[in-house]
Amino acid sequence: MKNISHGELKNASVSQLKEICEQCRKEIFETVSRVGGHLSSNLGTVELTVALHRIFDFPKDKLVFDVGHQCYTHKLLSGRADRFSTLRQKGGISGFPKREESEFDAYDTGHAGTAVSAALGIAKARDIKGENFHVIALVGDGSFNNGLIFEAFNSVKILNSPVLILLNDNGMSISPTVGGTHGVLDAAADGKSEPVKLFEQFGLDYMGEINGNDLNELLPALEQAKERLKHGCVLMHVHTKKGQGYPFCENAPAETHGVCPGCANKSEYCTALGEELTALAARDGRIVAVTAAMTDSLGLRPFFNAYPERAFDVGICEEHASVLCASMATEGLKPYYAIYSTFLQRAFDEIIHDVCGQNLPVTFCIDRAGITGKDGETHQGVFDLSYLSFIPNLVVAIPKDIGEFRAMLRMSVDCPSPLAIRYPREGTDSDCKSVEIGKFEVLHSTLSNIVLIAAGERCITLARKVLKRANGEGIDATLINARFLKPLDSELLNGLNANYIITLEDNAAIGGLGDAIDRFYLNSGKTIRNFGLKEAFIPHGEVCSLAEEYGLNTEQILSCMREFHARG
Amino acid sequence: MKNISHGELKNASVSQLKEICEQCRKEIFETVSRVGGHLSSNLGTVELTVALHRIFDFPKDKLVFDVGHQCYTHKLLSGRADRFSTLRQKGGISGFPKREESEFDAYDTGHAGTAVSAALGIAKARDIKGENFHVIALVGDGSFNNGLIFEAFNSVKILNSPVLILLNDNGMSISPTVGGTHGVLDAAADGKSEPVKLFEQFGLDYMGEINGNDLNELLPALEQAKERLKHGCVLMHVHTKKGQGYPFCENAPAETHGVCPGCANKSEYCTALGEELTALAARDGRIVAVTAAMTDSLGLRPFFNAYPERAFDVGICEEHASVLCASMATEGLKPYYAIYSTFLQRAFDEIIHDVCGQNLPVTFCIDRAGITGKDGETHQGVFDLSYLSFIPNLVVAIPKDIGEFRAMLRMSVDCPSPLAIRYPREGTDSDCKSVEIGKFEVLHSTLSNIVLIAAGERCITLARKVLKRANGEGIDATLINARFLKPLDSELLNGLNANYIITLEDNAAIGGLGDAIDRFYLNSGKTIRNFGLKEAFIPHGEVCSLAEEYGLNTEQILSCMREFHARG
Repeated sequence: MKNISHGELKNASVSQLKEICEQCRKEIFETVSRVGGHLSSNLGTVELTVALHRIFDFPKDKLVFDVGHQCYTHKLLSGRADRFSTLRQKGGISGFPKREESEFDAYDTGHAGTAVSAALGIAKARDIKGENFHVIALVGDGSFNNGLIFEAFNSVKILNSPVLILLNDNGMSISPTVGGTHGVLDAAADGKSEPVKLFEQFGLDYMGEINGNDLNELLPALEQAKERLKHGCVLMHVHTKKGQGYPFCENAPAETHGVCPGCANKSEYCTALGEELTALAARDGRIVAVTAAMTDSLGLRPFFNAYPERAFDVGICEEHASVLCASMATEGLKPYYAIYSTFLQRAFDEIIHDVCGQNLPVTFCIDRAGITGKDGETHQGVFDLSYLSFIPNLVVAIPKDIGEFRAMLRMSVDCPSPLAIRYPREGTDSDCKSVEIGKFEVLHSTLSNIVLIAAGERCITLARKVLKRANGEGIDATLINARFLKPLDSELLNGLNANYIITLEDNAAIGGLGDAIDRFYLNSGKTIRNFGLKEAFIPHGEVCSLAEEYGLNTEQILSCMREFHARG
Repeated sequence: MKNISHGELKNASVSQLKEICEQCRKEIFETVSRVGGHLSSNLGTVELTVALHRIFDFPKDKLVFDVGHQCYTHKLLSGRADRFSTLRQKGGISGFPKREESEFDAYDTGHAGTAVSAALGIAKARDIKGENFHVIALVGDGSFNNGLIFEAFNSVKILNSPVLILLNDNGMSISPTVGGTHGVLDAAADGKSEPVKLFEQFGLDYMGEINGNDLNELLPALEQAKERLKHGCVLMHVHTKKGQGYPFCENAPAETHGVCPGCANKSEYCTALGEELTALAARDGRIVAVTAAMTDSLGLRPFFNAYPERAFDVGICEEHASVLCASMATEGLKPYYAIYSTFLQRAFDEIIHDVCGQNLPVTFCIDRAGITGKDGETHQGVFDLSYLSFIPNLVVAIPKDIGEFRAMLRMSVDCPSPLAIRYPREGTDSDCKSVEIGKFEVLHSTLSNIVLIAAGERCITLARKVLKRANGEGIDATLINARFLKPLDSELLNGLNANYIITLEDNAAIGGLGDAIDRFYLNSGKTIRNFGLKEAFIPHGEVCSLAEEYGLNTEQILSCMREFHARG
């Protein structure tokens, strides 16, 4: 698709604008079908974004997305249509708003609930500096469950700087939106006065409900919103259809939320989670499962179907989910909280304050750990080992494959303390009878003076690959599967006679396994080299090439082995 | 005060209950005046707690506090009156609810906003197990701003397990409660139907407003609430007067929220923050200050008075405050976010995702870092160096005294990256001209083969104390002030010829300065000993004795120096 000029958009007739919408929709569908990305949410917001670009003046005016799953049309309309085919590929344009990528992207996002706070901050800065422009937050209804949004609402009157909040209500997070908040939104849409008055209490002038797929409704509504912004913050409730224009997507909005061509044939850890936990729950009535709006992506649909009375999707409320688990555990239940690594950051305080502070047997099933690839900076799961490593009472487990993950889940049932199991999306199956807390596994035992200590499937695989090449050069090494970051296997580590240690982890090099091994062998005289991810926010790209580039480099590890071998 | 038996409370007449209230109030006032603690919030909730104990059956029924600043009467009424004089002292009873302390304490708290989630989790577990008891969450209106509360509200209909939520509305957090949420509560109290209908949308049956200092209103209202619980969740809005019964406290509820006898004469870092930031703001119109309901405790009142248009107390909304700072920085402002170390854990994701991910020059002024003493487990600021150590782009500074803190604040104005400065409550003044990012300071230079590397005032003081004793034994050491955890002073560290390194930090031993120095000197052949806080949740007590007990032990450090000296 060609770039559309500012003038072209500003001068187009409504029917020409509709034509532009169809171009965008086609471009999004074709590109995402080919390279993957967020499909149905972007298809739903084409008209809304075209209307925003017609009525407002970006980049002078600022558009802040929440999460950013709806930013593709904005990218197409802001000089990036000619590069849109590079979406989410290394060096190409990001699937999320990125200030570094374009001055049209006002604020970087990826996690839910930040847009209203960010819009208010930008508007406040505008007013302090005495400038004059509009600030718009575009927020999906799924994010409206998130506590951060309400914290921002609480601030509207305190900050007193007008912003336009566009609630894009498609009735879905990734899964259908759940909870009482959506009831309030529905009541508002039905023209009931209570929610409207409520929004007024927060200092929000409510407009709604607008058909967000109809330019004839949208354009005058946005003009009106612009007028009403002169008097304060405006909340405009827009209804859109997720997947609009493509019946297949309209009918399966959850399944077409994120599209990943070629992913279907690989084994996934989440499938094992669903199977194993459902089987365990059949025998153990204490087991409950909690997710924050991602039941399907986490593989828990079978559990939710089998045990609806013990399964809770609480919406995009990562903190609440954590406290819920802690409190259910105080009453003797055995909660499993499944969540992506990057989103668990939101519950960091609750892991400490509620779960580990009370030493409660909650199990965190941390999916998408390590480099995750195409979603980029905000979705890499590369800090979890660092932020879990120092929390008292917590056991941290890292399976080397899906079979071991299953064994860890079986083990978790009797684990008396909080437990975190972190794993990537894809992996390989295996047979694994059992694992014991704090016990490593020797995968390849030699008399070599070199030991590779690796954590997680990606690093074990990498270690094996390096080892194979080293073997070809007559260099051997012991290979250890570091199944637990915490507690370490001190018996095994104390028994190692080798002088050279190499650690591998798919996590920030600071604060994870490498540091733990360094600390363990402090003053031991052993020579240690740690391979982890360098201190950077890792952009989008292919998992393997990013890993190679950001610190888990095959040649560097091999050359380290050669050096150690030469030194004897 | 003597313990009051269950029977005594259940059989008392209302006038006898009033007498019990007066006993409790007197005991609280006298004990807190003597040993310190939370005064005015506890004075305000005496009648409410007595009424709860009369109407409900604890510990069969479960009472969950939010924060826990209102739990003293509950402790007096649950078999701990005879030990109440040991409040907040080492080995004595905690100032917060503690499950380990009593079966009457259903859930541990300290941070804001957890009570509704926790009550719902306990109630859900009750229903899953087929048990029968009541669950009550007692929440102050300040916590009602917190996003976590709204996440819990969103779940009420999802979980469908009745709890009684008691909103204790005294119009105050620690400072007066701010923001739109309180407007909604006020409207509900005024009998307006909109908020009531709104609460109904969330599945909450609203009752209010009840005078929470009047047993004649409270007792029948709680009886009624108990009935209404049969049909679902009840939100009972209770008005209480903070400081009730003691005119001095009633008139100065913020000043008498936390009482700390003997603290008045010591210099505090927060005073320097207020002075320095106000002075800097006079010259620099970009500077703004943000707090989360703790303007006074953080020393920022002078700034708020001088620059109200650039000063924002957003209520107990730590996440929102962080995003607000990030977004203001995108527009060229220079935000300072002042917060206690333990509460910044709430904004962990936003530090990564919003501030450091966009490399924005926000300054975090992290007060109450290290062991904080009498508030115990939930208030120790002992994880910040660990959870900040691995975040890309972030500079982490640790002043050794108040003068250096002032210099860091002056330096911060031109710091182009995110910056965290962490400091304890109390300290000593000094003259310090300037500090340079990433540069340590040599405080005592010797030819000794031993180097002490210490971070922060408490550890520099401890190092000096140990050094003095060592000097008396003919042992000397170089003393280095590690002003920055990140970046380290690699030039200085590379230049150190000494073979023995001792690190000292008032932070968890995992993930902080010790690990950073170990990593720096990996394979260097130097012998290193790290002193930090051991892996545990540190209970309440005196700061110095807790530090000695939990890892910063004078004798152990001295004996390490002796050992290093003997080895040459």
